[in-house]
Amino acid sequence: MESIYLDNNSTTALDPRVLSAMMADLSGPPANPSSVHHFGARAKKLLQTARRTVANFFQARPEEIIFTSGGTESINLMLRGLPKGHIITTDLEHSAVYKTLQALESPVTYLSPKLLGAPTPQLIASAIRPETKAIILSAANNETGAKIDIPAIAALAKQHNIPLLLDAVSYIGKEPFPMHPGITAIALSGHKFHAPKGIGALYLRSSLNLTSTLTGGNQEYMHRAGTENLAGAIGLAEAIQILTESQAAITAHLHALQTHFETELFEALPNLTLNATGPRLPNTTNISITGCDGESLLLQLDLAGIATSLGSACSSGALEPSRILMNMGLDRKAARSSIRFSFSRQTTKAEIDTALSKIIPLVQRLRALSAI
Amino acid sequence: MESIYLDNNSTTALDPRVLSAMMADLSGPPANPSSVHHFGARAKKLLQTARRTVANFFQARPEEIIFTSGGTESINLMLRGLPKGHIITTDLEHSAVYKTLQALESPVTYLSPKLLGAPTPQLIASAIRPETKAIILSAANNETGAKIDIPAIAALAKQHNIPLLLDAVSYIGKEPFPMHPGITAIALSGHKFHAPKGIGALYLRSSLNLTSTLTGGNQEYMHRAGTENLAGAIGLAEAIQILTESQAAITAHLHALQTHFETELFEALPNLTLNATGPRLPNTTNISITGCDGESLLLQLDLAGIATSLGSACSSGALEPSRILMNMGLDRKAARSSIRFSFSRQTTKAEIDTALSKIIPLVQRLRALSAI
Repeated sequence: MESIYLDNNSTTALDPRVLSAMMADLSGPPANPSSVHHFGARAKKLLQTARRTVANFFQARPEEIIFTSGGTESINLMLRGLPKGHIITTDLEHSAVYKTLQALESPVTYLSPKLLGAPTPQLIASAIRPETKAIILSAANNETGAKIDIPAIAALAKQHNIPLLLDAVSYIGKEPFPMHPGITAIALSGHKFHAPKGIGALYLRSSLNLTSTLTGGNQEYMHRAGTENLAGAIGLAEAIQILTESQAAITAHLHALQTHFETELFEALPNLTLNATGPRLPNTTNISITGCDGESLLLQLDLAGIATSLGSACSSGALEPSRILMNMGLDRKAARSSIRFSFSRQTTKAEIDTALSKIIPLVQRLRALSAI
Repeated sequence: MESIYLDNNSTTALDPRVLSAMMADLSGPPANPSSVHHFGARAKKLLQTARRTVANFFQARPEEIIFTSGGTESINLMLRGLPKGHIITTDLEHSAVYKTLQALESPVTYLSPKLLGAPTPQLIASAIRPETKAIILSAANNETGAKIDIPAIAALAKQHNIPLLLDAVSYIGKEPFPMHPGITAIALSGHKFHAPKGIGALYLRSSLNLTSTLTGGNQEYMHRAGTENLAGAIGLAEAIQILTESQAAITAHLHALQTHFETELFEALPNLTLNATGPRLPNTTNISITGCDGESLLLQLDLAGIATSLGSACSSGALEPSRILMNMGLDRKAARSSIRFSFSRQTTKAEIDTALSKIIPLVQRLRALSAI
């Protein structure tokens, strides 16, 4: 049976070109970029090249890129390293933001974008106080794909001189990233765009001083101690390079897949509701299917070889329905009847068609069963 | 020109067998162990197998093994997660311990083992107070290879019911690890024993509750959020499996190399002093060479294709002589004339002989120059 992977917001397959680049370290000589001998010099050069590639992507300077172990660490670094003070966020953030803010002592305003799925600039503006120290938002929601208007919110942050920290973990690789002088930090995670797991990065504008929460050696411009994950950094940079070369084509491909998938699904099945009414990423379709239990559908689809998700893998195993969907205002029943399909550039139209040919009758059967 | 790598305490080359094992993830299907579908189930099983391998090595239960991004993170987790209270350590610890303790608010006793290079059980005992909350020590010093008596110190900790936290980053892979009920936590780093960079682990006995400093998803038994670095965990486990199978032979090989190297060097050159007079790891030779500047020797050796180090790569680039050697009581001149050679199981006797044939005349030349 063919396996079709429609859960790319959880993780993606490593791109063979990325793996090939990583071999410079994985099958190379010992390489600690901090060593002063010729082995170390080679490693340092590889690391510098990787850092420059990521920096160029964000129109940044190399010293503004910090390699981390992933999105969660990047987010923890940018939040735990902040000076104390009022923070603005939403009630739809990933647990890495949500739980970390709860662990801090700073006062936090949690905005509620509700069904829109992401906050408008007006909603943000309404929460700004003279003492606001930071705005932390996901560029796109990992469960629904709902996007913020990055340039407008960055302009607002710039105007008020408040650091805007972006969780761009789900955004990167789906659409071109609109860099803006109002953005102070950007957290990203390699494995969400075909780089390996265990590597991430934080763009950190030099105007913001963060206290390091991982202390020891002097690596990463004193922001993050520990021997650098060179293979990971090379992999992340190669994955970024692919985006630099091909983002427009990737975005177009994702858009085509999404339009096709949603059109076919909505034509074949009544009573579907897209979760998030605002603009969305082109790779994410989170829908509530009235009369169909999401978990049953997920399990039946899995048996049919199709991998999907109910929401964030980081929160899976939880018995409660998605915190995000509940906070958007869905009732428990609608939240429990929701399922997320997320595509990647490796997803093909043929896979979408096969998936549709299994999803549609399965939903009809589950609806019929639940109606008995 | 042949390159000879004698800086294995900084990092080691990835073992081809380890790389081969990692391919299960690196060239496999998308694999997030938290996903509930069949892709996720496969990933979870791979992660569980890796965790069990590491747990078995420490005679521990799988839930006592936390995968981290490396030794520095493991150390930060075990120190930053501690409840506040009196901590005993030495003035010879790696910067990951030293700087992290300085960032905490707990009172710390810094013992001075001096030329011995590592604290005796008696020295530790002298510092224990009724309110002591933890003892944190390196199992072996990364700069000198000086070892503590693990069973004796673990017995002492057990007797006083004080958690003993071991920085075993430099120790693992050099000698069999003597697990003991008095050991509460063990930090290790994959790339020090031929696993990849970017992966480490913390053995954490279930009796000790640590506050997590990396929050978000529920991974790693709630101790460490973030999608698991599956390829890294598999690699670390494979490297541990190699030790389980071959540690005795590896230790014997390292002992033979070290004995040969030190015997030949001391026969050929007068006025050498081994830094650390106590028991040492079989792979580390840190010597003070009177009348020979360590940095000049390192650079000349590097030009001759031989990679060595002045001390911790994490602190390299510093203009000051080694903090460790200074704290051991060496004067600035002796500290500056010191150099570290560190071997691995991949080091051959032929490489040692080639290295000796270059080191000896080079030291003689540098001594002659400095005598002018």
